[in-house]
Amino acid sequence: MNTSLEMLACMLLQEADAALIISGENRRYFTGFVSSAGYLLVTRKNAFLFMDFRYAEAAKAQVSGCEVIPFNDFGKEFTDVIRREEIRTLLYEGSAFTLNEAARIDKLLEQCGASGIRSEGSDRCISKLRIIKTAQEIEKIIKAQRIAEQALQDTLRLIREGVAERDLALELEYRMRKLGADGISFDLITIAGQKTSMPHGVPGDNRIKPGDFITFDIGALYQGYHSDMTRTYAYGFVSDKQKRIYSVVRQAQQLALDSVKAGVKCCDVDKAAREYIYHAGFEGCFGHSTGHGVGLEIHEQPFVSSKNETVLQSGMVITVEPGIYLPGEFGVRIEDMVSVTSEGCINLATMPKELVVL
Amino acid sequence: MNTSLEMLACMLLQEADAALIISGENRRYFTGFVSSAGYLLVTRKNAFLFMDFRYAEAAKAQVSGCEVIPFNDFGKEFTDVIRREEIRTLLYEGSAFTLNEAARIDKLLEQCGASGIRSEGSDRCISKLRIIKTAQEIEKIIKAQRIAEQALQDTLRLIREGVAERDLALELEYRMRKLGADGISFDLITIAGQKTSMPHGVPGDNRIKPGDFITFDIGALYQGYHSDMTRTYAYGFVSDKQKRIYSVVRQAQQLALDSVKAGVKCCDVDKAAREYIYHAGFEGCFGHSTGHGVGLEIHEQPFVSSKNETVLQSGMVITVEPGIYLPGEFGVRIEDMVSVTSEGCINLATMPKELVVL
Repeated sequence: MNTSLEMLACMLLQEADAALIISGENRRYFTGFVSSAGYLLVTRKNAFLFMDFRYAEAAKAQVSGCEVIPFNDFGKEFTDVIRREEIRTLLYEGSAFTLNEAARIDKLLEQCGASGIRSEGSDRCISKLRIIKTAQEIEKIIKAQRIAEQALQDTLRLIREGVAERDLALELEYRMRKLGADGISFDLITIAGQKTSMPHGVPGDNRIKPGDFITFDIGALYQGYHSDMTRTYAYGFVSDKQKRIYSVVRQAQQLALDSVKAGVKCCDVDKAAREYIYHAGFEGCFGHSTGHGVGLEIHEQPFVSSKNETVLQSGMVITVEPGIYLPGEFGVRIEDMVSVTSEGCINLATMPKELVVL
Repeated sequence: MNTSLEMLACMLLQEADAALIISGENRRYFTGFVSSAGYLLVTRKNAFLFMDFRYAEAAKAQVSGCEVIPFNDFGKEFTDVIRREEIRTLLYEGSAFTLNEAARIDKLLEQCGASGIRSEGSDRCISKLRIIKTAQEIEKIIKAQRIAEQALQDTLRLIREGVAERDLALELEYRMRKLGADGISFDLITIAGQKTSMPHGVPGDNRIKPGDFITFDIGALYQGYHSDMTRTYAYGFVSDKQKRIYSVVRQAQQLALDSVKAGVKCCDVDKAAREYIYHAGFEGCFGHSTGHGVGLEIHEQPFVSSKNETVLQSGMVITVEPGIYLPGEFGVRIEDMVSVTSEGCINLATMPKELVVL
């Protein structure tokens, strides 16, 4: 077994004889192999990757530290291994198993005198491993971030009066893919004018006009890893009110960034941004959390919210993204992605944050 | 309640007091409303759509026949309704609920003296409704198909020696989006040469050269509905063997298309294509099913496989896509999407199927 599988086996020992992992991200995390389907069975001493005919050959060539078992009839191969490895209790991945899938595995286990265990144990253990990124993982996150930044730089040149929000999203995505991204990390947010007051606004036919703020919340996917960054630009001209709000968000974000360090609680990072925004008179205008972890999933542990007491550790990667949203007027959000260190953090974003009037 | 909700309530009556639906496709199917999260509760007489702050306002404006309940604290709003509607048993959507989500709802139900039911009942009922498309649904599927065809027409012009597979996929997607698609239906397959022998080949850096077959398996997403079509073209020149295989697949597909009609079993459509291919000497070279249903999901009921005895009904939409794959050499697949009628079927694809040498 490789190190990550060994660590998982070790953590799961107490709950069951084995664990069955089916989510694509976790199969990829533990084996390095990408597929749209499959099962990873981890026992105390061994790991087995069950792959159908589409992937079996490639998996055998690429995966090490884990026995690849090709199958036509999953039930047969699976029950063979359950019996051979003398597994009596099997932990399901509660965040990924549907009720129907669990019922199907239950029946197979029954044939072997074994039973499935429904708990969040497997999720908790996996999250503990995934929450700390290796250098190799951070490299991929940085590569995803560089692609997103380059694509944004190139797309900013297209901005003129009358360009539709949805075209900005499409051009950004096209450029990310041309630059080597496997895809986008989430539906890109490229919204303008009044719509910037919606944190989750969807790019539509709305067209850019002078005096608009334009919010870009963008991320690229590179070799399974995500990036996440938000920048807000002005187009044509900018009002004093816009300048003021921008500078409050900018300062709040800086305070939150300054607070990030191994040993600090997530809720205290949230507090650094939130208190500044509230004291500046914008209580009720910052309705979301300050950030979240980023990795194989775009939103993962740790969540940088006012309630999360999780303590930051070196190697965690989180976003810091406070905002102020004034319904019917406009909104501003500024977001960087950082990796936590014992001294503070390394900002993985390099794009400037001064207010730019395009 | 609208008709589809009433039908669902009626079908579910026998199993439980109510059903809880969480999959995005099914929430959209029954309410017409698009959101990335939310809960649809259907009782004997009423339906409730629970929406968080991001969607509540839009849902209230758009959804009819269903009470929209905004929530900050889902548990509170949900248990209020469970008590008010005197629900004792609640059917989970087994194909969509994860074990963790079910455990969470279990706890809420417990507070109300109610309990969750784990069965495939809800999935079965919903599938029975969704398997027959309304005229409005077929219109959207056709629109998605027209977008895909236009994008393919435009992309074919880019084909020349040295173009990489992955660039064809990207250009196709870009054109679909420009033509109004919400996205792609699946990772587009644009593969050339030897790689065409893999039914699920992934477009990569492989470049087109004379003598290649090029397989395009493509689909667009339009207002929630998918399309699916495959065409295989030759580039530069074509060998006698390629011609022969192409003509066998072409004829097999035609036989399968000719067999489609309300009242016919899915397995018999599969058989029509499969027997012809096997008799032509290519047993073992057609490893997948002949087709599948298409709608809000790209792969849905009914599956046109050798084992599925489901009887076709008017209004079903299925693909017919036999292929022959010769590892190390090349493959050919031809796929149309059709809607089943009492007389036969309407082919929703309009692109020609003669062997074209680009």
